[in-house]
Amino acid sequence: MKTKRTKVSELLQSTEFDREVLVKGWVRTKRGNKHVNFIAVNDGSTIKNIQVVADPNQISEDTLRLVTTGASISVTGKLVASQGAGQNMEIQASQLEVLGTADPEKYPLQPKKHSFEFLREIAHLRPRTSTFSAVYRMRHAMSFAVHQFFNQKGFVYMHTPIVTGSDAEGAGEMFRVTTLDAKNPPLTEDGSVDFSEDFFGKETNLTVSGQLEGELGALALGDIYTFGPTFRAENSNTTRHLAEFWMIEPEMAFYELSDNMDLAEEFLKYLAKYALDNCADDLEFLENRLLDEEKNKPATERSPMTLREKLQFVVENDFERVSYTDAVEILRNSKPNKKKKFQFPVEGWGTDLQSEHERYLVEKHFNKPVILFDYPKDIKAFYMRMNDDDKTVGAMDILFPGIGEIVGGSQREERLDVLRARMAEMHIPEEEMDWYLDTRRFGSVPHSGFGLGFERLMIFVTGLGNIRDVIPFPRTPGNAMY
Amino acid sequence: MKTKRTKVSELLQSTEFDREVLVKGWVRTKRGNKHVNFIAVNDGSTIKNIQVVADPNQISEDTLRLVTTGASISVTGKLVASQGAGQNMEIQASQLEVLGTADPEKYPLQPKKHSFEFLREIAHLRPRTSTFSAVYRMRHAMSFAVHQFFNQKGFVYMHTPIVTGSDAEGAGEMFRVTTLDAKNPPLTEDGSVDFSEDFFGKETNLTVSGQLEGELGALALGDIYTFGPTFRAENSNTTRHLAEFWMIEPEMAFYELSDNMDLAEEFLKYLAKYALDNCADDLEFLENRLLDEEKNKPATERSPMTLREKLQFVVENDFERVSYTDAVEILRNSKPNKKKKFQFPVEGWGTDLQSEHERYLVEKHFNKPVILFDYPKDIKAFYMRMNDDDKTVGAMDILFPGIGEIVGGSQREERLDVLRARMAEMHIPEEEMDWYLDTRRFGSVPHSGFGLGFERLMIFVTGLGNIRDVIPFPRTPGNAMY
Repeated sequence: MKTKRTKVSELLQSTEFDREVLVKGWVRTKRGNKHVNFIAVNDGSTIKNIQVVADPNQISEDTLRLVTTGASISVTGKLVASQGAGQNMEIQASQLEVLGTADPEKYPLQPKKHSFEFLREIAHLRPRTSTFSAVYRMRHAMSFAVHQFFNQKGFVYMHTPIVTGSDAEGAGEMFRVTTLDAKNPPLTEDGSVDFSEDFFGKETNLTVSGQLEGELGALALGDIYTFGPTFRAENSNTTRHLAEFWMIEPEMAFYELSDNMDLAEEFLKYLAKYALDNCADDLEFLENRLLDEEKNKPATERSPMTLREKLQFVVENDFERVSYTDAVEILRNSKPNKKKKFQFPVEGWGTDLQSEHERYLVEKHFNKPVILFDYPKDIKAFYMRMNDDDKTVGAMDILFPGIGEIVGGSQREERLDVLRARMAEMHIPEEEMDWYLDTRRFGSVPHSGFGLGFERLMIFVTGLGNIRDVIPFPRTPGNAMY
Repeated sequence: MKTKRTKVSELLQSTEFDREVLVKGWVRTKRGNKHVNFIAVNDGSTIKNIQVVADPNQISEDTLRLVTTGASISVTGKLVASQGAGQNMEIQASQLEVLGTADPEKYPLQPKKHSFEFLREIAHLRPRTSTFSAVYRMRHAMSFAVHQFFNQKGFVYMHTPIVTGSDAEGAGEMFRVTTLDAKNPPLTEDGSVDFSEDFFGKETNLTVSGQLEGELGALALGDIYTFGPTFRAENSNTTRHLAEFWMIEPEMAFYELSDNMDLAEEFLKYLAKYALDNCADDLEFLENRLLDEEKNKPATERSPMTLREKLQFVVENDFERVSYTDAVEILRNSKPNKKKKFQFPVEGWGTDLQSEHERYLVEKHFNKPVILFDYPKDIKAFYMRMNDDDKTVGAMDILFPGIGEIVGGSQREERLDVLRARMAEMHIPEEEMDWYLDTRRFGSVPHSGFGLGFERLMIFVTGLGNIRDVIPFPRTPGNAMY
C-alpha cells in the first residue's frame, strides 16, 4: 500500500518513530557536504520545518542538485528520533522526488533577510516566508475565533451588502461601482450622468460599514454580527490605512451601553486568549521577530511589553471604564500635557482624542485597557443615542496598548423623534433613510453595537508595524495588484 | 436583584418551572378576551414563540391595547408548565412593558400570508417573518459549518481581494470600481479614459472569483479556502442569478483530482449533516412551508423528496463518479432523449450539459448525487489540468437533486509549458498573469480546488425557490436598495 502523506504539523507532534512516512513541501534550506544533506522542508501547516536527511548513496546527485530553496519535493523515508540539536525528529529519506524546481538565479526568496517593502512587491510569493505564513495562519485563527465566539453566544452571522445604494453614514469617501461606459456615459436632459441607465438603476458604491443593515437584522433576530470587507476611498498613504479592509460589526437588540461594553471586553479577551492558546509557535516566532527588529532602537522606542505579554495584559486586566469627560480632566492635568510633551495639547472638553492621548491613558495612567464612554455628540455619528445631558451620546471606544483605539461602538438612538431631530441637525435626508426609520416606527427597542477593524486586531496580535502586511493583498492608493 | 433576560430559545429548553423570568421580544400575535390575553412573543433566537399569558387584572388595559403584532415588549413573570395545547410552558405576566409600538394601520407585516414578491420590497422588515428568520439562522449555521469544517482540517481561511486589478479568469462581465469623475473623466492624449488617474492607478473591477489568488496561498500554506463576496455584472433576471453572491473556494496543494472529489464529497455531506443536527426546528418549519407551497401543484411537479429527505439523501449516498464521456452516452441512450423529452437533445460529445440532463442523471438514472469528471477542454477554463488524451481536462462538477450543479472544480495545470500553451491558445495575455505563472516557475506542485456558490447551497438546504430569498439584501439588475 502507498504511504499516505502526513502534514509536517502532524509529524512534529508524533511520538511514533521508526515508521515510513511521506512528506511533501517546499525546501527552505539545504546544507551539508558530499556525505550527507540536511534539507529543511516546510509545507505551510506550521512555522516549523521538518529535517530531511538525504544520503547521496540513496538519493542521486542529479536529484539533489535540484533541491534548492523554494523547490517542491516529495520525500518518503523513515521518521526517526533526531540526534542533532534543534529538532526532536528527522526523516531519513529513502526516496526523494523534485516536483518543481526553483532556479536559484531567478527565485527571489533566497534564504536571507528581505525588507517588508521588497516582499510587498512580491505579495504573491511572500506567504512562502516564515513571517507571512505565520501572519496568515494567525489571520485564520483570529477569523475562526470570531465566528466561534459569536456562534457560541447564539449570534447570527449576517452578510450585509457590499454594493450599496445607500450613502447615509457619511463615514468617508466611497468607491463608485458601475457598468456605464467610462468615457461616454449616458446623460440626462440636463446634462448630468444618467445613473438610471447604470446596472442597478442608480448610483451605487462600495459599502463603508454594514452597521445600518446590521441593525435591521438585530431588530428581528436579536443578536447578529457581520464580518466582511468594507472600503474607504481616502487618499491616505499611512501604515494604518487600507482602501479595502475587513470589519466585524456585532449588533444586539435589548443591549444598553454597559451591556455593549461587557460584550466587547469579553470578545477581545476571548480573541487574545485564543491566540495564546492556539498559535503558540507562530506567536513565539513573531515575538522574536519583533524583539529582533527593536534591538537597534533606543530603549524609549521599544515596546514596553513583548508580544505575548501584551496579549496576557488584555486577558488578565479588567478594562478601565472612564467617561470622556473624566478622561479629558486626567489628560489636562497630566505631566506630558503640562510639560507640553503632547503633539496636540489637551485644552478642554469637546475635541476628539489623539492616539498619543489614548496611549497615555492605557500605558501610563491606568496601565490597563481602557473603555472611554459618553463622548460629545458633535464628534460622533447621528445614530448614537443622546444622553439626558443633551451634550453627550452613548458612544464607547476601547483603547489598547501600542495602537490606541481598537473598537468603536455605541448604543443606537431608538427613539424615532430624537433620531429624526438629529438627522435634521446633521442634514441627513430622511427620504433616503426611510427603511432605517421603519425600525424605529415599528417595534423599536434599545440596541447597541460596535465595530472592530480586523486588520487593526491583526496588527495587535502579530506585532507587525504596517497594516499592508497583515492582509494578503493590500489595496492602497495606486496599488491593486492581483 | 433584577431578573436577567433569558432568550426564548433557552427558555423553551428549560425544565425549571415556577421561577421568575424576564423575556424581551416582538409580538407575533395576540388573542384572547376581556378575561385573559395570550401573546406569542418571538425574539429571533428560535423559530418558536413563547406564550405570555396576560391577565387584565395584572396588566393595564392601556398597556394591553398597545400590544399588537410587531410591537416590542418586555415581560416579567412566572414560567409555568402550560395547560394549553401546542406548548409545554408559558409565562404568567406580572409586569409587561411596551418598548416600541407598531401601529396596526401602518405596520406592513400583519399576521397573514405575504407573497415573496411583497416581502422582497420590504427586505428591511422581512427578517421579522418566520420564513426569513429561519432562512437567516440557517445561513448562519451553514456559514459556521463551513468555517468549522475547514478549521478542523487545518485549512487557512484566506481573504482574497474584492477590488481586483486582474481581469484574467474571464468568468463574466465585471463591475468597474472607480473614483474618477463620472461625467468628465480625465483623458489620455489619444482620447481614451486615463485610468492612471484613477484611485488605484489603473482600471479595477470587483472580483469574480478568488481562485487565482487562492492558488498563491495554497502553494505556500498548503491548504487554504476563501469565503467571500463575488460579483457578476450579467443582466440576468432569473431565480438563479445574483449580481453579488458569496463563494467558498478551497484550494489544496498536493491534491489530485480524485483527492479533490473526496474532499468536496466529505464537505457537502458535512454541511447537510450539520443542518440536520443543528437546525431541526428551522428545517421542520421550512419543510412544511415547502409541502404547503407544493400542495396545489400537479403531482409531477412536486419535489420527489421532502427537504429533510433530500439532506439525508446527500448524507447517506456515496456520490456516483462518472466521466463526462460516459455520462453523455447514458444521456444519449436515455428514454427522455430518445422520446425527445429533453428541451436540449443530447446528440454527441463536446457540448456542456444542461440542468435537465444533470437532474436526469441524479434523480432518475443513478438516484444519488453524481460527480462528473474529465470534461472536454473546450468548454472549460484555461487553468484546468490537461489530461493525457489532450481532449479532456481534469475538471469535476457535483450534481445534486433539484438544483443540478452545486460544486465545480478541477485539478489545476501545474506544468508551466502546458499552461502557457493553453493561455496562448485562449488568448490570455501572459504579461498580466506573470505573478500567476511565477507559482509554476518556482516550486510548482500538483494542486486542486473547487468552488461552492453559497446561495446555491442555501437554496438546497432551505427549499426556497428564488435565490433572492436566501441572501438578506439581494443585488440584481435595477435593484440595490439599502
